[in-house]
Amino acid sequence: MIPRALAPGRAGILTASLAPAGTGPVRPCDTRLVKVALLGFGLIGGSIAYALRRNPEDWTITAWSPTGGGPAVARAEELIDEAADSPARAIQGADLIVIAAPPLAALDLIDALAGPLIVEMAPDALVTDVVSTKSAIVARAEAARLRFVGGHPMAGREVGGFDAARPELFSGRPWVIVPASTARYGDRERIEALATACGGVPVAMSAGDHDTAVAAISHLPLVVAAALVESVAGGEGAAARPDWTTAAGLAATGWEGMTRLARGDVAMGAGIAATNAPAIAARLRDLQAVLAAWLVYLDGPTGPDAERIRARFDEARNLLLASDAEAAE
Amino acid sequence: MIPRALAPGRAGILTASLAPAGTGPVRPCDTRLVKVALLGFGLIGGSIAYALRRNPEDWTITAWSPTGGGPAVARAEELIDEAADSPARAIQGADLIVIAAPPLAALDLIDALAGPLIVEMAPDALVTDVVSTKSAIVARAEAARLRFVGGHPMAGREVGGFDAARPELFSGRPWVIVPASTARYGDRERIEALATACGGVPVAMSAGDHDTAVAAISHLPLVVAAALVESVAGGEGAAARPDWTTAAGLAATGWEGMTRLARGDVAMGAGIAATNAPAIAARLRDLQAVLAAWLVYLDGPTGPDAERIRARFDEARNLLLASDAEAAE
Repeated sequence: MIPRALAPGRAGILTASLAPAGTGPVRPCDTRLVKVALLGFGLIGGSIAYALRRNPEDWTITAWSPTGGGPAVARAEELIDEAADSPARAIQGADLIVIAAPPLAALDLIDALAGPLIVEMAPDALVTDVVSTKSAIVARAEAARLRFVGGHPMAGREVGGFDAARPELFSGRPWVIVPASTARYGDRERIEALATACGGVPVAMSAGDHDTAVAAISHLPLVVAAALVESVAGGEGAAARPDWTTAAGLAATGWEGMTRLARGDVAMGAGIAATNAPAIAARLRDLQAVLAAWLVYLDGPTGPDAERIRARFDEARNLLLASDAEAAE
Repeated sequence: MIPRALAPGRAGILTASLAPAGTGPVRPCDTRLVKVALLGFGLIGGSIAYALRRNPEDWTITAWSPTGGGPAVARAEELIDEAADSPARAIQGADLIVIAAPPLAALDLIDALAGPLIVEMAPDALVTDVVSTKSAIVARAEAARLRFVGGHPMAGREVGGFDAARPELFSGRPWVIVPASTARYGDRERIEALATACGGVPVAMSAGDHDTAVAAISHLPLVVAAALVESVAGGEGAAARPDWTTAAGLAATGWEGMTRLARGDVAMGAGIAATNAPAIAARLRDLQAVLAAWLVYLDGPTGPDAERIRARFDEARNLLLASDAEAAE
């Protein structure tokens, strides 16, 4: 392990941290070398390691994963300082503990950190996470009296795992930050500094607002992609489809694009659905109402209404273009 | 206009056409220079021109479009032999007339070809199309007593128009061929030769089987993409969504992928929906049933059922992987 506290450039950080916010290189908000423990080391955990490693004088990184495979490779590549063989080992002396696991595993880790692992934690250690849902996670941390600020970097790829991790994954992307009631003064800023150091843009939001928003733009699309496959290819929820082979033979880019999310990590999808079920269910009901209206235009007593159908396609397209324009401002 | 009938290489074709099928370079099935008229010159019409131009000794190409813009550019680039200023001019002397227009415009062109334009057509001219739905198109051609073989190359891009046209668009892709009852002996083979010359793989299918299949893998996804936008962003079919701005700010690749089809050509979408409405409506009902089952797992009286949800994501994923494996065989 490289003794980074003694590495050249440390004095420079002390100086840089006195510069006004928003100027100069990105630095963690305190002037110490921050020790980060990553619990979970897939796409997100690995990408955090890559992103922080761009400023090795600011961070030391320890990582643990259930299989140990990713951390071992990362240690051999000197991407991290230590590959820990247990969560207990990983969190020893850590300033920041980042739970970078799927949703249900993250809930278990919160319980473990507030339970058997608490004796291993430094007195002022702060815990955060990167899970796609926030209400259930933050509520669990609060119930466990864990010092916690929830996080959700809005970045992903269609492939998961450490092999897919990239240093630029979070660049310019929102990183939602949701302090728990158990967080202390300055804790939110510590996680904002982590997000910024990773290239992300911190966005403060309540857990409820976050979960409603991501139910719309992330979780509903995930469920719809799976349901589309089931309805066409004949899953549990649908009749057998002997015509699926014919249809699959004609499938082109449209089908591939609309079902790509259904190829993702199954445990992740299930954890997301289970920990944000009410918000997703509400969105699903909204979608069902819209589809019912489409059915009337397609299959009403007077036959298909091409003008109304055109108007609806037009409106959907305009909503997307207006959203593009707003994002570009 | 280059007098291609006199161009070098013509004799070679006469020889090559005597070679056994499946050997040697791809040739149209008769030994004459085939004159193709393209009515409509967007992504598909333009790509057909590019594809045929790879064998200029086999084809002459005339194109017309409502605006005339694409054909003018293509003529200047010598991609086509003539930019016609009217459908009547385009079809004069044509052996093959390819309707490469959106669905509703294609229906009108069928009526025009069987009506006022019939006097301009060569006695043995054959008409085909490239429209995404087949039953309505073929039925219209039969009702009009037009000599017709329907076609549908299963290829597309997310952008339309002549600018998006590419010579390789059809390479290795299925090209569905549906002869009308008004087609004559050998006509199907003439359209198969067109498909093959474009790099496509001819697939014989009934109009009904085609429409059921593409309703699943193409038209249902199109409607779902638009409905997803409406339900989340607040279109005509849904309540106003003041939370849309927040959600849009967090949208990442998943949302973009699931709504890309809703950014496409509105007239095309409306025409597809209007000319294949019963099949799309049937698929939409299947999807509604699947979504209703998801709602039970997400929002049932005993709370979200993570195990069942996981099993459903798993099944959807396995259906896609099994389909990949079958396609790779």
